[in-house]
Amino acid sequence: MHLERIDPDGRGRFAFLAYDQGLEHGPEDFRGNPEALSPRFVLDLAHAHGYTAVVLQQGPALATRDLHPDVLRLIKLNGKAGIAKGDPYSPLLCPVEYAVKALRAVAVGYTLYPGSEHEGRMFAEFAEVVRQAQAFGVPAVAWVYPRGKAVQNDTAPEVVAYAARIAYELGADIAKVKWSGTLDSFRWVCESAADTKVVLSGGVLTEDPREFLDVVDKVMKAGGAGVAVGRNVWQRPRADAAAISREIIARVRA
Amino acid sequence: MHLERIDPDGRGRFAFLAYDQGLEHGPEDFRGNPEALSPRFVLDLAHAHGYTAVVLQQGPALATRDLHPDVLRLIKLNGKAGIAKGDPYSPLLCPVEYAVKALRAVAVGYTLYPGSEHEGRMFAEFAEVVRQAQAFGVPAVAWVYPRGKAVQNDTAPEVVAYAARIAYELGADIAKVKWSGTLDSFRWVCESAADTKVVLSGGVLTEDPREFLDVVDKVMKAGGAGVAVGRNVWQRPRADAAAISREIIARVRA
Amino acid sequence: MHLERIDPDGRGRFAFLAYDQGLEHGPEDFRGNPEALSPRFVLDLAHAHGYTAVVLQQGPALATRDLHPDVLRLIKLNGKAGIAKGDPYSPLLCPVEYAVKALRAVAVGYTLYPGSEHEGRMFAEFAEVVRQAQAFGVPAVAWVYPRGKAVQNDTAPEVVAYAARIAYELGADIAKVKWSGTLDSFRWVCESAADTKVVLSGGVLTEDPREFLDVVDKVMKAGGAGVAVGRNVWQRPRADAAAISREIIARVRA
Amino acid sequence: MHLERIDPDGRGRFAFLAYDQGLEHGPEDFRGNPEALSPRFVLDLAHAHGYTAVVLQQGPALATRDLHPDVLRLIKLNGKAGIAKGDPYSPLLCPVEYAVKALRAVAVGYTLYPGSEHEGRMFAEFAEVVRQAQAFGVPAVAWVYPRGKAVQNDTAPEVVAYAARIAYELGADIAKVKWSGTLDSFRWVCESAADTKVVLSGGVLTEDPREFLDVVDKVMKAGGAGVAVGRNVWQRPRADAAAISREIIARVRA
Amino acid sequence: MHLERIDPDGRGRFAFLAYDQGLEHGPEDFRGNPEALSPRFVLDLAHAHGYTAVVLQQGPALATRDLHPDVLRLIKLNGKAGIAKGDPYSPLLCPVEYAVKALRAVAVGYTLYPGSEHEGRMFAEFAEVVRQAQAFGVPAVAWVYPRGKAVQNDTAPEVVAYAARIAYELGADIAKVKWSGTLDSFRWVCESAADTKVVLSGGVLTEDPREFLDVVDKVMKAGGAGVAVGRNVWQRPRADAAAISREIIARVRA
Repeated sequence: MHLERIDPDGRGRFAFLAYDQGLEHGPEDFRGNPEALSPRFVLDLAHAHGYTAVVLQQGPALATRDLHPDVLRLIKLNGKAGIAKGDPYSPLLCPVEYAVKALRAVAVGYTLYPGSEHEGRMFAEFAEVVRQAQAFGVPAVAWVYPRGKAVQNDTAPEVVAYAARIAYELGADIAKVKWSGTLDSFRWVCESAADTKVVLSGGVLTEDPREFLDVVDKVMKAGGAGVAVGRNVWQRPRADAAAISREIIARVRA
Repeated sequence: MHLERIDPDGRGRFAFLAYDQGLEHGPEDFRGNPEALSPRFVLDLAHAHGYTAVVLQQGPALATRDLHPDVLRLIKLNGKAGIAKGDPYSPLLCPVEYAVKALRAVAVGYTLYPGSEHEGRMFAEFAEVVRQAQAFGVPAVAWVYPRGKAVQNDTAPEVVAYAARIAYELGADIAKVKWSGTLDSFRWVCESAADTKVVLSGGVLTEDPREFLDVVDKVMKAGGAGVAVGRNVWQRPRADAAAISREIIARVRA
Repeated sequence: MHLERIDPDGRGRFAFLAYDQGLEHGPEDFRGNPEALSPRFVLDLAHAHGYTAVVLQQGPALATRDLHPDVLRLIKLNGKAGIAKGDPYSPLLCPVEYAVKALRAVAVGYTLYPGSEHEGRMFAEFAEVVRQAQAFGVPAVAWVYPRGKAVQNDTAPEVVAYAARIAYELGADIAKVKWSGTLDSFRWVCESAADTKVVLSGGVLTEDPREFLDVVDKVMKAGGAGVAVGRNVWQRPRADAAAISREIIARVRA
Repeated sequence: MHLERIDPDGRGRFAFLAYDQGLEHGPEDFRGNPEALSPRFVLDLAHAHGYTAVVLQQGPALATRDLHPDVLRLIKLNGKAGIAKGDPYSPLLCPVEYAVKALRAVAVGYTLYPGSEHEGRMFAEFAEVVRQAQAFGVPAVAWVYPRGKAVQNDTAPEVVAYAARIAYELGADIAKVKWSGTLDSFRWVCESAADTKVVLSGGVLTEDPREFLDVVDKVMKAGGAGVAVGRNVWQRPRADAAAISREIIARVRA
Repeated sequence: MHLERIDPDGRGRFAFLAYDQGLEHGPEDFRGNPEALSPRFVLDLAHAHGYTAVVLQQGPALATRDLHPDVLRLIKLNGKAGIAKGDPYSPLLCPVEYAVKALRAVAVGYTLYPGSEHEGRMFAEFAEVVRQAQAFGVPAVAWVYPRGKAVQNDTAPEVVAYAARIAYELGADIAKVKWSGTLDSFRWVCESAADTKVVLSGGVLTEDPREFLDVVDKVMKAGGAGVAVGRNVWQRPRADAAAISREIIARVRA
């Protein structure tokens, strides 16, 4: 029921425009297209092309509170900078209540790093986020990236499938995971998530847009519910970003 | 008194169908029988064969809230992924109140890892779970698996007996422990638990069902109160799972 | 004033029957006298011989709530398993209020490990236990066992005396400490405790009861307030346990 | 809106007089000009020259509560001594409510050390400070200094730009960052901060005031919003401190 | 204003009789004068000689609650045993409210160890103690002892001056610091404390009382506000303790 706001046609297809990389990676991500330094760039794109929602941290959400009221917002509740090495901990930065009431969130997101020595704090925080999200009637989206000494390859099919399953076990409505490399393995990923929808984590810019769109096609064929894409959109100049947005959304909504 | 809901005939015999391995081990556990990727598989089995309760984490419990209202649910309150090595910490993911009120729990479970350097946090959380369970009138089940540098062999009789005793000292109604290897040693395990009931932790799939059923027989003869079985049931195809379910339940209820 | 319940004649003499070893040491402690696996054994002894109180963790206290209502109960509020090595942390497992209201505690106990790297958490928890105990009108008993890299010998007189003093500085009504080896040194221990009463920690079973009783004599002559004895009683068969109980209590009440 | 109190003319230009070095560096910072040991020195300067606000920790703010009521105060909410090496953690020492209600804060400040292994606690605390500051109608200023093993050079342009961006992502109204070395690189820093204003962290005393003033000029040309200066003012004798104050403020307000 | 109770004549001179060494050092400190094992010894001295207040932990304060109602009490709020090596953490053991309401505190004390890896927890706790003390109208006294790997010599003038400054920055009314070795350096210590009063930490027993009294003289000449003395008083027999008390108080009140 609480997916309604972000899934008005009930088809369970989602195209999120992710814009939390300023915190996770730093402004170097915007070097090639400095216009994207401002969230206005992604809000404009979402307004024009009908993305399901834009993903924002508390800061950009506050700064653009009155902009594009038609664009839905998924507030990313936790985060960390990409500077420190070692087992990651990404703490809750924004409570669900504040996201919903002050930042107009219609969905909330939280990154889990299973395998990190700090896994426990994140699992417990996210499980509570799920309950809060239930209470406020918004879906909870889990970014799930296994990490730590025991994870050699975080895009290995069994690792990505485990990521998707963890999201399900904790109660996520949607899991955002990496591409596992093949259509067949991604089908297993989607099946592993059971009732939880799976969306592709867009990842780094691919030189040739068709390369990325090909992956989107496979995700959808494998049973995926869509994408959460960022750099593959806003690292391109405005016209190219518009073009690939149309292609992505067409594929997700096909 | 609070055992009534899961022990209607007052005989103190329990056959739990455990389904928290998706979080603890990952979807590889379902590889051999992909139908079990969905909790519907185990709910169907429980419905058909009269398991005491199905063991679920918050996520699957939420997703199947309206399914098989006749099947009782033991909500597993804590959990962790099976990725990180080192001393385990399994944090409380779901409070007793939410389990009872939102997830229809008639019993709650919590895993303790005595010997882990994080033992203290789990002991304290579980002791509070016991008090909450008392307040909400549901039994508290302790999974107890000694771990850490000092534990060479976690199925050694004195280790399993200590596990059972810890459950008793903290106030568990039921302790779930590993097979200690022999009927005699398991009798000592059961005696060590004093007023706490002891159920067998089913463990890995045994090729030949009779091998597992033989252990169940010994558990019951040693004074055990039943089993909490998972992989030995749902890693088999539907017909075989049904067959072994009948055998297990017959032995527990004998 | 709040000692009244456990010291009706106002003489300040105490004989506690300790039964928290199932958690601290495991069921191996009961191997020689399996009857003692059940707390009924110690409750019977306390009923028959007039021990000041029986020392129980939350679990056995819950399980025997309606047994021997005449036997007073000291609820042990913290505890840990004896598996992990390294600096000990024994967390609060049961709040004072629950001990008093739900478990019929007339006294509460807490183990401190000064010198452990986790000392601070235990000192802070116990200082709060003291205030809660004041509020609920029950005495607070501190088990004090110095530990950690800096402690070579935890029965050295200056170590035991420091243990007793710490109990006093934090506000314990009674300190339970180890035998410091001689009557003279134990007199210093008792003096170091100032207004806090000192009771002997019984320790391991002595083959010959007279050996233990001789220590009890010295403790009382040194100014001690009694004993908290466990294994030296309930590791003996029922008749012998009764016999030594009579001897111990005679000495303490002399 | 909540910038009004410290930005009455709405031009978004700020000259903070920082005086939290007594905690961060110790009194050696005042050795050359002992008059500055008392906050009266900086309050007098702020009164005479029209600094936007004086930056004070709780202690000096309490001690000078009734002094110069016309001088605005930015209360620094966290802090640490400069003694310990290793990854820094600067805990919240003063809640926003107390700063505003008891210490007359019209703005609040908090230091972030991205890259420190304690980053998460500071990010979470600051994100809450931002929400509290919103609730009390005062701006939140983030001091941002990347640290830790992965930070070779904390004034490298990409490091300073990341610092500014972090302030934005968490919701700071103003970011205080180090000089990145050149006008061009500082322009990128200011652009990276998007809607967050950037002020220069004054740093160590420059022998020749013109050297510092030249940096201030470049900061303003690069799109900076001003400075937060301390040692370059109050490490000079009263007359020189007055002279450089006039120059700084002229440049910021130009 | 809240110094009134302990500074009735408004001269800002203080002579505290410290008696928290039983916890910090253990009963060995009382070996030479066993009469001092009981706080009655120091309460008698304070009663006879007019010390500003006696410094007590929660335990001795509880035990002597009804003794010498004329003697003022500074309750020491945190503490630790002197057993463990490594970076010290001294946790809050007693809240300000309990100290004031239950233990008749007219002042409260807290030890800070700047430079310890646990510095942050102590800074945060003490900053809160300052605010609580404000609310209850009692002065907050900071014991400040820099520690940790970076501190070679904790009586070096710049280290002691930094200690005094930290007390000021966090809002202490009075700082208790070690002797920095010379009158001149201690003057810098006192100046570094700005509005915070500085009292000498008495330290170990000096064989010849004149040696200690000479330091007291220098402290007062350097601008100090008095002393907090313990071992130099109560490690002497009653008559000598009385004699040196008269000398100390005469110097402080001169």
